[in-house]
Amino acid sequence: MEIIQIWKTASAGIATGKAFFYKPVSLKASAGLIGCDQTGAELDRYRRAEEKVKKEISVLAENSEIFQVHLDLVEDPALQDSIVKKIIEEHKNAELALEETSAEIQETFQSIDDDFFRERAVDIKDVCRRIMLALKGLEEDSLAGIRGKTVLFADQLTPSDTANMDLQSVTGFVTRTGGENSHVAIMARGMNLPALVGVGSAMDEVKAGDDVIVDALDGRIVISPDEETIRKYSRREKEYRQRLEMLKQTNDLPPETADGFRVRLYANAGNLEDIKKATAEGAEGIGLLRSEFLYMESDHLPTEEEQFVAYKCAAELCGGEVIIRTLDIGGDKALPYFQMETEENPFLGWRAIRILLEQRDIFRTQLLAILRASAFGKISIMYPMIISVGELEEANAVLSECKAELTRRGIAFDPDIKTGIMVETPAAVLCADDLAHYADFFSIGTNDLTQYMLAVDRGNKKTAQLYDSFHPAVIRSIRSVIEAGHRHGIPVGMCGEFAGNADAVPLLLGFGLDEFSMSPSRIPEIRYLIRASRRDEAQSFSERVCRCVSPKEVRRLLKERK
Amino acid sequence: MEIIQIWKTASAGIATGKAFFYKPVSLKASAGLIGCDQTGAELDRYRRAEEKVKKEISVLAENSEIFQVHLDLVEDPALQDSIVKKIIEEHKNAELALEETSAEIQETFQSIDDDFFRERAVDIKDVCRRIMLALKGLEEDSLAGIRGKTVLFADQLTPSDTANMDLQSVTGFVTRTGGENSHVAIMARGMNLPALVGVGSAMDEVKAGDDVIVDALDGRIVISPDEETIRKYSRREKEYRQRLEMLKQTNDLPPETADGFRVRLYANAGNLEDIKKATAEGAEGIGLLRSEFLYMESDHLPTEEEQFVAYKCAAELCGGEVIIRTLDIGGDKALPYFQMETEENPFLGWRAIRILLEQRDIFRTQLLAILRASAFGKISIMYPMIISVGELEEANAVLSECKAELTRRGIAFDPDIKTGIMVETPAAVLCADDLAHYADFFSIGTNDLTQYMLAVDRGNKKTAQLYDSFHPAVIRSIRSVIEAGHRHGIPVGMCGEFAGNADAVPLLLGFGLDEFSMSPSRIPEIRYLIRASRRDEAQSFSERVCRCVSPKEVRRLLKERK
Repeated sequence: MEIIQIWKTASAGIATGKAFFYKPVSLKASAGLIGCDQTGAELDRYRRAEEKVKKEISVLAENSEIFQVHLDLVEDPALQDSIVKKIIEEHKNAELALEETSAEIQETFQSIDDDFFRERAVDIKDVCRRIMLALKGLEEDSLAGIRGKTVLFADQLTPSDTANMDLQSVTGFVTRTGGENSHVAIMARGMNLPALVGVGSAMDEVKAGDDVIVDALDGRIVISPDEETIRKYSRREKEYRQRLEMLKQTNDLPPETADGFRVRLYANAGNLEDIKKATAEGAEGIGLLRSEFLYMESDHLPTEEEQFVAYKCAAELCGGEVIIRTLDIGGDKALPYFQMETEENPFLGWRAIRILLEQRDIFRTQLLAILRASAFGKISIMYPMIISVGELEEANAVLSECKAELTRRGIAFDPDIKTGIMVETPAAVLCADDLAHYADFFSIGTNDLTQYMLAVDRGNKKTAQLYDSFHPAVIRSIRSVIEAGHRHGIPVGMCGEFAGNADAVPLLLGFGLDEFSMSPSRIPEIRYLIRASRRDEAQSFSERVCRCVSPKEVRRLLKERK
Repeated sequence: MEIIQIWKTASAGIATGKAFFYKPVSLKASAGLIGCDQTGAELDRYRRAEEKVKKEISVLAENSEIFQVHLDLVEDPALQDSIVKKIIEEHKNAELALEETSAEIQETFQSIDDDFFRERAVDIKDVCRRIMLALKGLEEDSLAGIRGKTVLFADQLTPSDTANMDLQSVTGFVTRTGGENSHVAIMARGMNLPALVGVGSAMDEVKAGDDVIVDALDGRIVISPDEETIRKYSRREKEYRQRLEMLKQTNDLPPETADGFRVRLYANAGNLEDIKKATAEGAEGIGLLRSEFLYMESDHLPTEEEQFVAYKCAAELCGGEVIIRTLDIGGDKALPYFQMETEENPFLGWRAIRILLEQRDIFRTQLLAILRASAFGKISIMYPMIISVGELEEANAVLSECKAELTRRGIAFDPDIKTGIMVETPAAVLCADDLAHYADFFSIGTNDLTQYMLAVDRGNKKTAQLYDSFHPAVIRSIRSVIEAGHRHGIPVGMCGEFAGNADAVPLLLGFGLDEFSMSPSRIPEIRYLIRASRRDEAQSFSERVCRCVSPKEVRRLLKERK
């Protein structure tokens, strides 16, 4: 028996079966330049393959938003234009045109260090493979044919692969690459299929045909488990199912502690799909709508009208409050159509509100769209990366101009729309009392705050082990921001990952955090934990934690408490 | 009349005269490969030119440390090896070998974003030009021939150019490139020659022959001044000279306020030369010895013995306390012989103590050398980039091991050597009370602290205007660090640029800063300002400043006070 510790769980649960290594047959284009007279026929051949694929995906898209995205991708102008150009102008055959285009688009997306784009690369790969199969007259059949209880191992899986799995046989899967928020991970959670992703070389320990247990609760793979281990995991799985049941029972109950401290349970959303997911999980509102999706999914700066439609839709989908964060690009997020100079330290560079206050047109367009949408639901505005009162005053002045403009144009908006800030820089922490005079609410962004507070880029492998939101400096900052907000009578939320961290719940309750905003999937457990807590206990506990002098000591206290 | 505002003053004073544009004749190598049989003769020719140049520079070096450096550069192994290789192996003539080598070394230095290396590039250029002139049998004469009161304008000046100036005629100079700490700027200050450097395109406003006043007090150039302006500047110059006299008078008096608050006036040093300069300016000690110079001037990791000799020499040169900061590479500082991966945000990456705690050999060698030197003078140790108690404990544990090793080896060291930390991360500010338990002193590094606090890379042009150590978050951090240090009975110094900022003096006195460490040239003025201040007044003033909500408001208060 061998146990491999991994951690990155994509979809919780426990899967047992024989290890099956899935490696889809590589589909190479038959090298091919074509004659000038053949280009029309070749394009027709491509169109026929495309039509076939659209029909296939349409069936899957009926019950899956991910495949709705794929349907759009088939007709994506970037894909279309490139294919047409390569066939008509460069006289390449359809397979070669497709292979090159697919590679080019994937490369563009992969070069951007952002999960959103990496995920797009997988989607493009998936769609293009379908078209390639259609061009070659082949069917993907390697996955549907699996028999017997099987755990699937693969370098990467696409949404199509996942949809192809026979759930009678496949009990779970493990991938070498991919993140917890990849489409495949999302699908796995929807299918209740235990999954580990991004396990890297740990996968090489497993051999085809091995009996394995994939423990996607603690992030472990057990190879050739002994009898006792099998029994243990069988018990664990049962307990897990019972816990799920229990969480389901509290899912309709308000997020308040046993002694009556009521908080708001919100979700973070990266697009409109996430909002649906959030409401399905019982989120009362959206504590962070990352407006970047509108800009990233587009090939131009989205117009006021395009944005208005999206924000209105967001408000309507949500029902509760939607806090829209104004455009947060720069740092590690770029827009293909927005020129930015290379920076030596982009995280300390021209990003977020710094860009918006200089590029007033972009800022005004977004604020006008948000304001217009505010007539159709409860919408709030949140500015990212604020470091000083001056920036906040300036941003609010632009907002006032936008309100005046809408009034002139006779267009309705919520005149009392709330404007808050992300507290995600040490400067904002130190100036929280000042900023509270000019903001209607705070939302603590623990991801960036931890990064700046500790001077650690969490994307950097050499320093990742230093990145720790349980560092006393971060914890004390959180407390002081909440206290400052309350001194000035404004609510304080949190939309960083810390808000969805089970270990952090007693701390944040103790500090009196008003709003927890997290990835939708975290809501049931955090709701359960909040309801199982007492505010008074949490308060004295959190005071003790604030006196800890190291992350290690903090973790020790948290562990003792469990 | 036209006034150009510039700001970057290299050497204070006021210069008047006619504008003269200096552009040294470009010296191109006559393209030349040579026969195999000529390489020996060619190398001899190079050696003769080299000898001639060494004699020239030796004369200058008698009174100038900068030219002592140039003398070393002529014999620099990197230069020598490359020249020999190009002549002997690549059959290039001496001029071509020199031209290529000079360009290559300059490029290497310029690619490093660090003033030290940029300055080395200018030195190399200067020395190589001298050798080229010698090879071609020419003399540099364009500058010595200037007659009549002249202000010199140039893209760049080298130390040789500066030494060539006839001070009867040249009243001051302005350069397009270069920094305030360039060798040319240092020479200008030594010669009492008013100078502005790095003025960029502002220089294009001036035409040859224009009457100009270079106001290197407020950083202005006045073109074709009217009578009244000329009179005004004549008065200003007189006042400035009187002020210099006044500063000279307080220069031997202790740095204490009128009501008896005594501080320590220290200097920052980047090498041993700086220490001499510091003592000449009346520094009582070195608050920051940047040990990087030992590593950067070498082509290998300096040995324990090499470092010991240098640190011992530092202690002896200084007389007072020398605080040696352990190696602070990473960020924007690299060593040619130490491999580092490219990082997306090097300022948030693997740097300073993070490297040392992983590369224990490098750390131990340095600590052993420092300990050994501590037997010969008052030396203290300072760790850079500390973010947590754990790091400090770990560093101190390595130090204890080193002490034990020296005891075993029977080598003397100061058993009570003080160890402190740079407080330059927001985490260290928030954890100052904890860190004070494990440190003998704090030294606030305002440059990096400002950068992390505000999430602004000051080297980034797009965000440079946001970089401001007068931001309330920075000022409040400074206060809280000083208070934390004093609560635990340890002294607090400052070695960032803020310590030498005249406007900051009342603030820092008010907070009770124990030690001001700054660039040596700033010492006379800061001493004068400290002696002209009262601690009690400074205290109430600094409390008012801490209540300011914006850098703008802080500056307003400071201005009102003047």
